[in-house]
Amino acid sequence: MYQISSMEKLINELTKLPTIGPKTAQRLAFYLFKLSKSEALKLAEAIIEMKEKITYCKKCFNISEGDKCFICNDEKRSDLSICVVAECQDVIAMEKIGTFRGRYHVLHGVISPIDGIGPAELKIKELITRIKECGTKEVILATNYDIKGDATALYLAREVKPLGIKLTRLSYGLPMGADIEYADKTTLLKALEGRREF
Amino acid sequence: MYQISSMEKLINELTKLPTIGPKTAQRLAFYLFKLSKSEALKLAEAIIEMKEKITYCKKCFNISEGDKCFICNDEKRSDLSICVVAECQDVIAMEKIGTFRGRYHVLHGVISPIDGIGPAELKIKELITRIKECGTKEVILATNYDIKGDATALYLAREVKPLGIKLTRLSYGLPMGADIEYADKTTLLKALEGRREF
Repeated sequence: MYQISSMEKLINELTKLPTIGPKTAQRLAFYLFKLSKSEALKLAEAIIEMKEKITYCKKCFNISEGDKCFICNDEKRSDLSICVVAECQDVIAMEKIGTFRGRYHVLHGVISPIDGIGPAELKIKELITRIKECGTKEVILATNYDIKGDATALYLAREVKPLGIKLTRLSYGLPMGADIEYADKTTLLKALEGRREF
Repeated sequence: MYQISSMEKLINELTKLPTIGPKTAQRLAFYLFKLSKSEALKLAEAIIEMKEKITYCKKCFNISEGDKCFICNDEKRSDLSICVVAECQDVIAMEKIGTFRGRYHVLHGVISPIDGIGPAELKIKELITRIKECGTKEVILATNYDIKGDATALYLAREVKPLGIKLTRLSYGLPMGADIEYADKTTLLKALEGRREF
């Protein structure tokens, strides 16, 4: 359509990104074109640098620029409490709380038979080895509250409980600012089941 | 926040793009991280290639990989009819119609005193020279239907009309599929003013 192959190629690459449709891709491509060369190349260089430098932490499988991530390297934190998450982005979300002083373990996915992902495809074996080696006292399951997250949590429970370790899962209920009138019935049911003494 | 400088840098660069907020930038960065190295580098290379190869057509100021763009190079099209647009993206939109056989002239902006953009900042002088040299018969103004687009059209009219050339502007009225009940009054007014014999 553009008859300018380098522009078509860029728009095509941008369209492959999640949340970017053809119209946004065109807008971004023209924005990059109008930027100064050095400004536009900063993005290209940032992609190259990220791909070259970032790898996975050998202990918790979070992203890292070295063998161990900044959390595993932090001696003020300990493996006594390990929070198990599905993806690296979940670590960022949990870290925003700012009070958790344990460490993480990233599974890199959730159990999903329909996508051909079973326990063997996740970092579960590594979690079990780590728990045994580090004398972990509590494992906090922080998987999403959906079918795949539930299946993963159930599987992990079966693996971790026999080790005699305290196993908890994030609580479910009404989110902050929620309006009971408009809450869906499953959330309300979970909030009722999980009610706590006032 | 991420304590991983190359990831922070990439997210920072992505956030500078239009329509990309911090959450989308994080999502895109992790998506690029999870891609194979060769796939992720394709985007970086496409940006670099675009910045190296694309320049402006010396005649109509559309984007081009050579001195002249593919439209100015197309001998089946002529300068007898020149469609004046504000931005290169507008050329793409107009070309989608598929029937216009004239050529374009990209102004690279519109008159906007508040942003310090006057006629001298736009490719207006070049348009006048081109019209005189190429024996143009009709100039079609295709600027947006807003204050800046109107101001630009009015200014161009004052420059082009004395040359004795037919000057037209895209018509305004109800868009295809519009519902009269919900049309805004300015659009309806323009549709009434521009009514044509049936």
